Amino acid sequence: MPRYVPANSLESPRFTGVRTFMRLPFAQTTADVDFAVVGLPFDTGATWRVGTRFGPEAIRSMSAMLRPYHFAHDVNLFDHLSGVDYGDAAVVPGFIEHSYEKIEAFLQPLHEAGVTPVALGGDHSIVLAELRAAARKHGPLGLAQFDAHGDVWDQYFGHKYTHGTPIRRAMEEGLLDGSRVIQVGMRGPLYEPHDIQQARDFGFEVILADDARALGTAQVVEHIRRKVGGGAAFLSFDIDFFDPAYAPGTGTPEVGGFSGADGQQLLRGLTGINFVAFDVVEVLPAYDGPGQITALLGANMAWEMIALLAWRRKPHPRPLSSG
Amino acid sequence: MPRYVPANSLESPRFTGVRTFMRLPFAQTTADVDFAVVGLPFDTGATWRVGTRFGPEAIRSMSAMLRPYHFAHDVNLFDHLSGVDYGDAAVVPGFIEHSYEKIEAFLQPLHEAGVTPVALGGDHSIVLAELRAAARKHGPLGLAQFDAHGDVWDQYFGHKYTHGTPIRRAMEEGLLDGSRVIQVGMRGPLYEPHDIQQARDFGFEVILADDARALGTAQVVEHIRRKVGGGAAFLSFDIDFFDPAYAPGTGTPEVGGFSGADGQQLLRGLTGINFVAFDVVEVLPAYDGPGQITALLGANMAWEMIALLAWRRKPHPRPLSSG
Amino acid sequence: MPRYVPANSLESPRFTGVRTFMRLPFAQTTADVDFAVVGLPFDTGATWRVGTRFGPEAIRSMSAMLRPYHFAHDVNLFDHLSGVDYGDAAVVPGFIEHSYEKIEAFLQPLHEAGVTPVALGGDHSIVLAELRAAARKHGPLGLAQFDAHGDVWDQYFGHKYTHGTPIRRAMEEGLLDGSRVIQVGMRGPLYEPHDIQQARDFGFEVILADDARALGTAQVVEHIRRKVGGGAAFLSFDIDFFDPAYAPGTGTPEVGGFSGADGQQLLRGLTGINFVAFDVVEVLPAYDGPGQITALLGANMAWEMIALLAWRRKPHPRPLSSG
Amino acid sequence: MPRYVPANSLESPRFTGVRTFMRLPFAQTTADVDFAVVGLPFDTGATWRVGTRFGPEAIRSMSAMLRPYHFAHDVNLFDHLSGVDYGDAAVVPGFIEHSYEKIEAFLQPLHEAGVTPVALGGDHSIVLAELRAAARKHGPLGLAQFDAHGDVWDQYFGHKYTHGTPIRRAMEEGLLDGSRVIQVGMRGPLYEPHDIQQARDFGFEVILADDARALGTAQVVEHIRRKVGGGAAFLSFDIDFFDPAYAPGTGTPEVGGFSGADGQQLLRGLTGINFVAFDVVEVLPAYDGPGQITALLGANMAWEMIALLAWRRKPHPRPLSSG
Amino acid sequence: MPRYVPANSLESPRFTGVRTFMRLPFAQTTADVDFAVVGLPFDTGATWRVGTRFGPEAIRSMSAMLRPYHFAHDVNLFDHLSGVDYGDAAVVPGFIEHSYEKIEAFLQPLHEAGVTPVALGGDHSIVLAELRAAARKHGPLGLAQFDAHGDVWDQYFGHKYTHGTPIRRAMEEGLLDGSRVIQVGMRGPLYEPHDIQQARDFGFEVILADDARALGTAQVVEHIRRKVGGGAAFLSFDIDFFDPAYAPGTGTPEVGGFSGADGQQLLRGLTGINFVAFDVVEVLPAYDGPGQITALLGANMAWEMIALLAWRRKPHPRPLSSG
Amino acid sequence: MPRYVPANSLESPRFTGVRTFMRLPFAQTTADVDFAVVGLPFDTGATWRVGTRFGPEAIRSMSAMLRPYHFAHDVNLFDHLSGVDYGDAAVVPGFIEHSYEKIEAFLQPLHEAGVTPVALGGDHSIVLAELRAAARKHGPLGLAQFDAHGDVWDQYFGHKYTHGTPIRRAMEEGLLDGSRVIQVGMRGPLYEPHDIQQARDFGFEVILADDARALGTAQVVEHIRRKVGGGAAFLSFDIDFFDPAYAPGTGTPEVGGFSGADGQQLLRGLTGINFVAFDVVEVLPAYDGPGQITALLGANMAWEMIALLAWRRKPHPRPLSSG
Repeated sequence: MPRYVPANSLESPRFTGVRTFMRLPFAQTTADVDFAVVGLPFDTGATWRVGTRFGPEAIRSMSAMLRPYHFAHDVNLFDHLSGVDYGDAAVVPGFIEHSYEKIEAFLQPLHEAGVTPVALGGDHSIVLAELRAAARKHGPLGLAQFDAHGDVWDQYFGHKYTHGTPIRRAMEEGLLDGSRVIQVGMRGPLYEPHDIQQARDFGFEVILADDARALGTAQVVEHIRRKVGGGAAFLSFDIDFFDPAYAPGTGTPEVGGFSGADGQQLLRGLTGINFVAFDVVEVLPAYDGPGQITALLGANMAWEMIALLAWRRKPHPRPLSSG
Repeated sequence: MPRYVPANSLESPRFTGVRTFMRLPFAQTTADVDFAVVGLPFDTGATWRVGTRFGPEAIRSMSAMLRPYHFAHDVNLFDHLSGVDYGDAAVVPGFIEHSYEKIEAFLQPLHEAGVTPVALGGDHSIVLAELRAAARKHGPLGLAQFDAHGDVWDQYFGHKYTHGTPIRRAMEEGLLDGSRVIQVGMRGPLYEPHDIQQARDFGFEVILADDARALGTAQVVEHIRRKVGGGAAFLSFDIDFFDPAYAPGTGTPEVGGFSGADGQQLLRGLTGINFVAFDVVEVLPAYDGPGQITALLGANMAWEMIALLAWRRKPHPRPLSSG
Repeated sequence: MPRYVPANSLESPRFTGVRTFMRLPFAQTTADVDFAVVGLPFDTGATWRVGTRFGPEAIRSMSAMLRPYHFAHDVNLFDHLSGVDYGDAAVVPGFIEHSYEKIEAFLQPLHEAGVTPVALGGDHSIVLAELRAAARKHGPLGLAQFDAHGDVWDQYFGHKYTHGTPIRRAMEEGLLDGSRVIQVGMRGPLYEPHDIQQARDFGFEVILADDARALGTAQVVEHIRRKVGGGAAFLSFDIDFFDPAYAPGTGTPEVGGFSGADGQQLLRGLTGINFVAFDVVEVLPAYDGPGQITALLGANMAWEMIALLAWRRKPHPRPLSSG
Repeated sequence: MPRYVPANSLESPRFTGVRTFMRLPFAQTTADVDFAVVGLPFDTGATWRVGTRFGPEAIRSMSAMLRPYHFAHDVNLFDHLSGVDYGDAAVVPGFIEHSYEKIEAFLQPLHEAGVTPVALGGDHSIVLAELRAAARKHGPLGLAQFDAHGDVWDQYFGHKYTHGTPIRRAMEEGLLDGSRVIQVGMRGPLYEPHDIQQARDFGFEVILADDARALGTAQVVEHIRRKVGGGAAFLSFDIDFFDPAYAPGTGTPEVGGFSGADGQQLLRGLTGINFVAFDVVEVLPAYDGPGQITALLGANMAWEMIALLAWRRKPHPRPLSSG
Repeated sequence: MPRYVPANSLESPRFTGVRTFMRLPFAQTTADVDFAVVGLPFDTGATWRVGTRFGPEAIRSMSAMLRPYHFAHDVNLFDHLSGVDYGDAAVVPGFIEHSYEKIEAFLQPLHEAGVTPVALGGDHSIVLAELRAAARKHGPLGLAQFDAHGDVWDQYFGHKYTHGTPIRRAMEEGLLDGSRVIQVGMRGPLYEPHDIQQARDFGFEVILADDARALGTAQVVEHIRRKVGGGAAFLSFDIDFFDPAYAPGTGTPEVGGFSGADGQQLLRGLTGINFVAFDVVEVLPAYDGPGQITALLGANMAWEMIALLAWRRKPHPRPLSSG
Repeated sequence: MPRYVPANSLESPRFTGVRTFMRLPFAQTTADVDFAVVGLPFDTGATWRVGTRFGPEAIRSMSAMLRPYHFAHDVNLFDHLSGVDYGDAAVVPGFIEHSYEKIEAFLQPLHEAGVTPVALGGDHSIVLAELRAAARKHGPLGLAQFDAHGDVWDQYFGHKYTHGTPIRRAMEEGLLDGSRVIQVGMRGPLYEPHDIQQARDFGFEVILADDARALGTAQVVEHIRRKVGGGAAFLSFDIDFFDPAYAPGTGTPEVGGFSGADGQQLLRGLTGINFVAFDVVEVLPAYDGPGQITALLGANMAWEMIALLAWRRKPHPRPLSSG
């Protein structure tokens, strides 16, 4: 029986209590823990709208709606997993390199202890620190990135670290295995065609939004599974993957994105991949409207990630795509 | 010529006047009336966000945009129907069983007089009172339920009446004919798999959201027509059937839902079914944003319901699905 | 050195971490604790707008802005006090008497252990349960009530328990000493003059809003000190005491209320009174606008209450009003 | 016993029913009616923000909070008055002179029948049509105008009719007796000093906002009583009289305005003046925020106007200011 | 090298500077200019929600997110085009015919100089003035209209000019060649079937929303290309073409509309058509929510229009649809 | 006759055109210019809410409401002054020291040319760069600072530059003459009493909010005039000086602040002081609500500053306070 499970919503209503992710215990421990939800509320990397420092709060707030049983995978997440809300890294607003150190140091013990982090951003610049922490343990990683933007720019005003550059930095630092990286959902006006080409030159597979729509979700899933393969991998989900109608609360929304159901189907297809870390980034509550649908969608994506962990532990798993 | 028709928007602009549904006369009468729009602003049954007591006001507000001619059915609603805004039941906030009595007593005269109620919620707990009123006249009813949740829980904190339990209560009270009940759109994290199984054990057909998407709207329509059959039936539309992008203003939104066009196509397919009562529930304006798109969508769904009544009365009807 | 103090915002930014009140530890303990912030997210008693179940969450969120040093009292709250966020009572939405039992049972151990509860509502109906818990320990209490409404109605639709009736119920149950009750801020259209007279017949002093303005805050403070006297007392602060410009996010706002500075000055004057419990009620975030100024004001009022506790413990206190 | 009174909120909750002003009956009759609340949702005269066509709807919505007893005047409004919600004039959006005809024709029967109109705007351009209707019955009127702007411009882009010109037009048409006109609250940047001088040249008394603050409300009341005198008069209340903190939902907000309590005190002082018509204009809900505090304030100002009517009818009235 | 290009966002962040469209120079010149973005902030023609006078401001604000390279067309817009933000026509709020004169006079010099206007509305009534200016230069035009409504009513309250009548007026004035007019996206409740029939009687092709969905975007593109043909044509895009989920910020939203991706695919298919003028109308920011997704979508549609101009100028163009 | 004046709002409506401050010409020139409005949209210094990078845009948007004549000073601003909107400094988001260089370099030519900058923030960290630019020309400056916070912390997480530290840095760099610095409005919970003491140790006069209220605005004005004296001075206005009711749209709102009228009266009293630069900082539109009252208030404060410049140039000026 897992040690850390959500508060029982049939004993206390979901709207009661301090807001932890999915009503999990708040505990900064790695003992008897399979996964840890962590907040990385850093937003100094943003180049347009800013304020994702309140993203973890908003996702936690809406995550109270999440229940434990996943119908599509036929699994109760907490039959197999023990999880905590591990709190937030003490980032330093205004100072990206200092914050990277803080984030990496915060995540390192989780990886050492074999606890899978499920990080809530924060802007996408944080992924560099996340990858540093993960790669130190696991070596160069595969990556499945859902995003409207490739984030492979070289610099911005002469500075190397922003939310548009972390993937390139990760390649330069040897944190990623380019042959096992896939980016899905790129779209929108670009500064130059080079933005996409650069990623391909790194060996990435890039599936543009229009191409993903033409392929359909089942085919996109196959591409991801094939590209990422069997090694240790990272799953990074930028909420701007979704269309602004589904995720208005984000820093750089792009027209022509995906639906919430698309996101669900894509993540549900990724059973069995050896993800050693996850994140959901760029939820920006100040632009989300009273319904906070972006935060709800972010919470659901994190829940799908945890469900992938549960699926791996349940008896006799068979890949969904071959079912 | 029908007696009660909307104010003519070419004589007074749609934004003038006291807000009744679709600018119909406010009249608490059953004489010369075919349908009556009623508000059931009860929200004490809600277990997460609350405030649907203002749902009828918001739907009435946006309903001023509705015009009388339905292109797909080729029918002017008021060539065949006389309708009123009958006002609201005097529910008792905070007291569900007392409110049930009030609602049932409010609706009973409509059924007795052969007037079809089109109810605006209110949270979904009200459907039990609606079914009591309808079944007293018509006996056990068929049901077409569009919803993200089956609402068949047994209890909540030891209490039998909430917005998660009314369908089970209705079965227990013999108000529904389980063999003629179909639920469409279920999705989202569950407490346990039993939630769906329970409904199936009652004899219901349950079409999960993912399955509905795979079938397509035309096929779902066929399932509904076949299941509900020719007897007296109830059509209950929980606005959380729609994706949060389309209906952010609701109490328990669930990712992965349907579009407004899906809702239109589904309801337009249900011509000829003997619906004796309708409702649209769970519109919660405080979470709807300045555009009030959820209320607009709710108003349109009610309009489609009234159009189904008009379709039955127009000469030489043929089912849309066989056209 | 107090055991439980807020997280140091010079070590981790205020926007990091799980949202507890004022970044205090979340701990359901009474050992080494002087005060406990508790959430009482019950809103079934509301007769107009509803949704204060999310009040504690919003107040906690904005309370991260509170720092420990109180300039006017010249006291650092945590030089003298140990405090925790004790979490929320497991209220039962939709069932007021059941919720009263839960709330009373939740608060009882605090009073037994000599821990002062600082409760965050929830609608004002909860004050009856709070008074039951406090009076069981301390006997009939004095009361300083800041509010736009006296809450002394007898019933509502035949029901005895709503947010308009708790003070009358408390008198009937012997929880209050009417000769030590003062109500400040009443205003707005009434159903009948009896609403005010009833309170006076109980022996209360009632200072209407216009009269309070004419007296000035210093004089109102004197009236309160004189009326409440030296015995055990309760301080209940309904956020609708403030003008809607200052507190739009509440259930029954009334024009012609008070400013935030008025509220501060009034509470700062109440040094030395023997308050054994506090609450801030009726914060309703869904109507509060993006700035969440009502929640911020509620958090500040709670902070003033805690400062009153600290003032009593600091060396050589002298009453502010005689300074 | 008055024939038309509000629905009893102790029989049906205030949030039930079709939204009429203060839950009064909707009835387009003048028989047995003392006052009639009318909507004049015309906003084509606006030169900056636009959308007051939805002002009457918003004021009606919030007016459900109004109760019948006025404590300061010690009068239950409906002990002495019968009132209806008379609905809205069928204005013609986009066509000001055509709309003026519609409004005047709509109000004329009320004046003829001795029914006092309480009009809800709409932008301030409508006051010209209101004055035409009133003056046709009563001759040149006195005027008490609460407003941030004098509305005495000559023209705008060569056009004579906008929300900045109606008072000048009224003078030109002989609808006002300039010696009995007072304007209170003017402030904000001007195009030229002439804006104020023009009004004074008409014989108006103009009390600028800063001067009103220096005088205090009691003195301003005396100025108004003295200036307007005993003849038939009109009371026009532009909601932008209030500071934007109190009334954000308006078309041309001006910094440095008044509080809601100021507005209450000013109107409460105007007992005994022979007002033959009232209005509250420039409530613009789209800019009002979720709390809709501007609409609430507008509803309260209309309620104060009706209370002035009730005060005149109650036995043994004595002027408040001499009390 | 084009003379007028956007500010370089790698030299100054996109959030800096005065808001011109896409950070283009503000310049009221036609020399060395290929296209001019113009604001036509007129909204007096609106019959329901109003406020599109702030549409150009909102679109300009969000247009700062647009970058110069179009991936699908493989073209950098400013390799081939010089463009300016030409500012706004000095419309006269409240006076439609006067405004038409102003708009036509404002646009005329652009057409004379061979500069293509890309107009930002304003309500759809402005298209009549746009067509007058364009037809004076080019003779009767073809038209591709994306819209929920055909805008072919005859009159409204006896007046000929509103946002529901401009297309009929244009036919009457000989500004359009009915055989080259296509309308796509019509839906929603109608006053009568005649609304659609009228357009067809003019020789227009009308593709209803449901039919467009059934055809698919590629087929709709073919219909448009065939109907509009090779002559001079106008592209008018009413933002209510989109579903309210994608474009809540508009005056008369209609359920059952299109996605942002649909809009992109349709416009991208219209390469090579001889469009001499473009507009995006009916963006109404006050109803758009904090994310301003409607304004973003409007900015993107204008960007697609400019991209069509760039595509025509790039070397060796081949129609996308035959690729 | 001044060369650069606002667009005439009687020729083109205020809602037309590209949004420059007060409809002034956008021109990056110093010739024939008396004052230049500049945007400094830097917000990386913020430690709580973030997003003032959009402050200049919002203030410019609302500044279209400002007209040229100032009644209290009896001066038309543009009878004496020529002014431009000079655009924004190309700050570097995420990099404070780099941004300081950019801001200083941007402002330097203005000071050299004798043009008075009126800067729109951005967070308060920018004042250090502003002071560097001003002091390089004028030597150590006097300072009148309106603010809820003294901004004299030493560091934050070991970093010297944030929005809590600029005033201390300015002292350390010799940019300010501490004997001529006055801070007004400090309030709210503090980390320690030292926060205020530090400022006093620098020689500043600090008037806490409560003390300012007790003194009254006229007395506060006298304190400022006396302290700042006749030398070159800087006027810095942090919008959080105002109460959250008046200015919800800011990063660190504090309860118990001032009204808009207070702000007007204070600035109007500062005639004749030799201000060489001005700023309005910390307007954060994402938290401002649909009415954007904070931006409006900020625009008005900037207008008061420009009026102070105009007052100095008008013939025969006499200090207001001695009138």
